Amino acid sequence: MSKTDAEPAKRGRPRRGPDPERFAEIVEAAAEVILDKGYSATSIQDIADRVGILKGSLYHYVRSKEDFLYKIIKDVYDEAIADMRVVTDAEQAPLEKLAAFVRTHVLFAADHLVPYTIQLREFDRLSEERRAEIREGGETYVVVLQGILEEGQRQGVIDKAIDPRLASIVITGELNSMTRWYRPDGPRTAEQLADVYIGMIVSSVASESAVASAGGIEALRAAFSRG
Amino acid sequence: MSKTDAEPAKRGRPRRGPDPERFAEIVEAAAEVILDKGYSATSIQDIADRVGILKGSLYHYVRSKEDFLYKIIKDVYDEAIADMRVVTDAEQAPLEKLAAFVRTHVLFAADHLVPYTIQLREFDRLSEERRAEIREGGETYVVVLQGILEEGQRQGVIDKAIDPRLASIVITGELNSMTRWYRPDGPRTAEQLADVYIGMIVSSVASESAVASAGGIEALRAAFSRG
Repeated sequence: MSKTDAEPAKRGRPRRGPDPERFAEIVEAAAEVILDKGYSATSIQDIADRVGILKGSLYHYVRSKEDFLYKIIKDVYDEAIADMRVVTDAEQAPLEKLAAFVRTHVLFAADHLVPYTIQLREFDRLSEERRAEIREGGETYVVVLQGILEEGQRQGVIDKAIDPRLASIVITGELNSMTRWYRPDGPRTAEQLADVYIGMIVSSVASESAVASAGGIEALRAAFSRG
Repeated sequence: MSKTDAEPAKRGRPRRGPDPERFAEIVEAAAEVILDKGYSATSIQDIADRVGILKGSLYHYVRSKEDFLYKIIKDVYDEAIADMRVVTDAEQAPLEKLAAFVRTHVLFAADHLVPYTIQLREFDRLSEERRAEIREGGETYVVVLQGILEEGQRQGVIDKAIDPRLASIVITGELNSMTRWYRPDGPRTAEQLADVYIGMIVSSVASESAVASAGGIEALRAAFSRG
């Protein structure tokens, strides 16, 4: 008996690649399991159970559990970079650009809460090659933000005593920490939350002359948070 | 042959409880494994391997893997609360108290980096009872900070447009995020890092009159960060 005879259902049917829509659903389910259990404790079997298919069927889509993590993180990185490019490409004064950066970051994280949180928590579980590949894909938030703060210092609107690199790390950490407590059904919309962050962040780095131009620190906070 | 005859070494020796110093060493090793692998993926065997003793010997000290997590988190909570009590008990004006809060928080996290990070990442892996017990042990950072901001609003040194609860959550997140990148052998000491945080945080919430009293926003940042 030949192998072909043993698999009559496949005979004559053209071999199809995996269905992209179905794959997207599976990746979404995988992300939920990874968020709940943590990547290390998640098995391919757990993902299959969540999706409701046989474990073996997952291997039409991926070769390993890490492929799921890679897909989740790569996609959210690519989208975040595309979103942020709109901010960096805009012709805006530095404080306006800082406010736009914060708003874009908050809205993006709120809108991609599951994969964004996984990217924050599990990035280091990717292989070294894949981490390098993703990092090369585009400038990180920290680098973009540092550029905005440096331009602000050149134009005199950001306090020159501030270290742009360290301030960028601190602010990015501040924004990323929203994934620990923000929930879409919470008391504030992502837009309102972005306003709060903008007011606090702009005033935390603004220069003397930027504060004076705005008519004081409280006026500065209010003006930028409603941009 | 009786059981007693088979274990001659134990005969006549009074039964001792577990050695507290040895237990502290074991908990420290357990914390390192949990930080590396994540709690869910860590087994009692992994901890025994790190300590270099037989798995069975660990059961002189704990009944379950969760007992390690509980011990790590309970200890770091108790110490953090004791440290913070020094800040809350001090007779200080609100902005000085805010600066002291930030400094205490940064120095504590830097000094307890492993258990502090585990507490942030793995708190939810504790049983509901233990989470409730730890939460009842003392006021959290967010609650302490909220009290400082509210007092600052009453005294006119914190912007009244700020929501003290939300600002406390944002600032605590900002401070906690240092555990993602701070390393004791990095370019800045924890004291220097505390100065940076204090300057940014005080200026992010200060009122018009507080800025005016300090002689401007840059002077305010500089004055408080060198408290």
